Amino acid sequence: MKATVYVTIKQNVLDPQGSAVQGALHSMGFDEVGKVRIGKYLELDLNTTDRAEAEARLKAMCEKLLANTVIEDYRFELEG
Amino acid sequence: MKATVYVTIKQNVLDPQGSAVQGALHSMGFDEVGKVRIGKYLELDLNTTDRAEAEARLKAMCEKLLANTVIEDYRFELEG
Repeated sequence: MKATVYVTIKQNVLDPQGSAVQGALHSMGFDEVGKVRIGKYLELDLNTTDRAEAEARLKAMCEKLLANTVIEDYRFELEG
Repeated sequence: MKATVYVTIKQNVLDPQGSAVQGALHSMGFDEVGKVRIGKYLELDLNTTDRAEAEARLKAMCEKLLANTVIEDYRFELEG
């Protein structure tokens, strides 16, 4: 089973990396760019066939390691 | 218009960050986790209404700044 996890910074938390990219894009002439937010995108192969269990396990992985839930949100998709 | 950009490491390029996360998940008891690949996920607000132009401009942003096309692939989606 393949899992895709998206970890994004919460809306009310500052994103200095996003601001830096926005500034760089502006200085390169891409003036149409407004707010930029940068997150993480993870692809995991899971050796399991039980979808419900995989969801529960993925939730635990996100809470414990993949996302810092104080400042980040996460969501995931399961395929296969 | 809202753009979502996914930047991923090419399949044949080593991903040490992914390997580290895989090792950490294993040591936490998540033994079902196979390969882990980590990429970037960017959300950009674009002050433009011309979809075709936005696509061309986004492609330029990815090639010039957002992705290192020697070792990374990118894809993007436009909404609104």
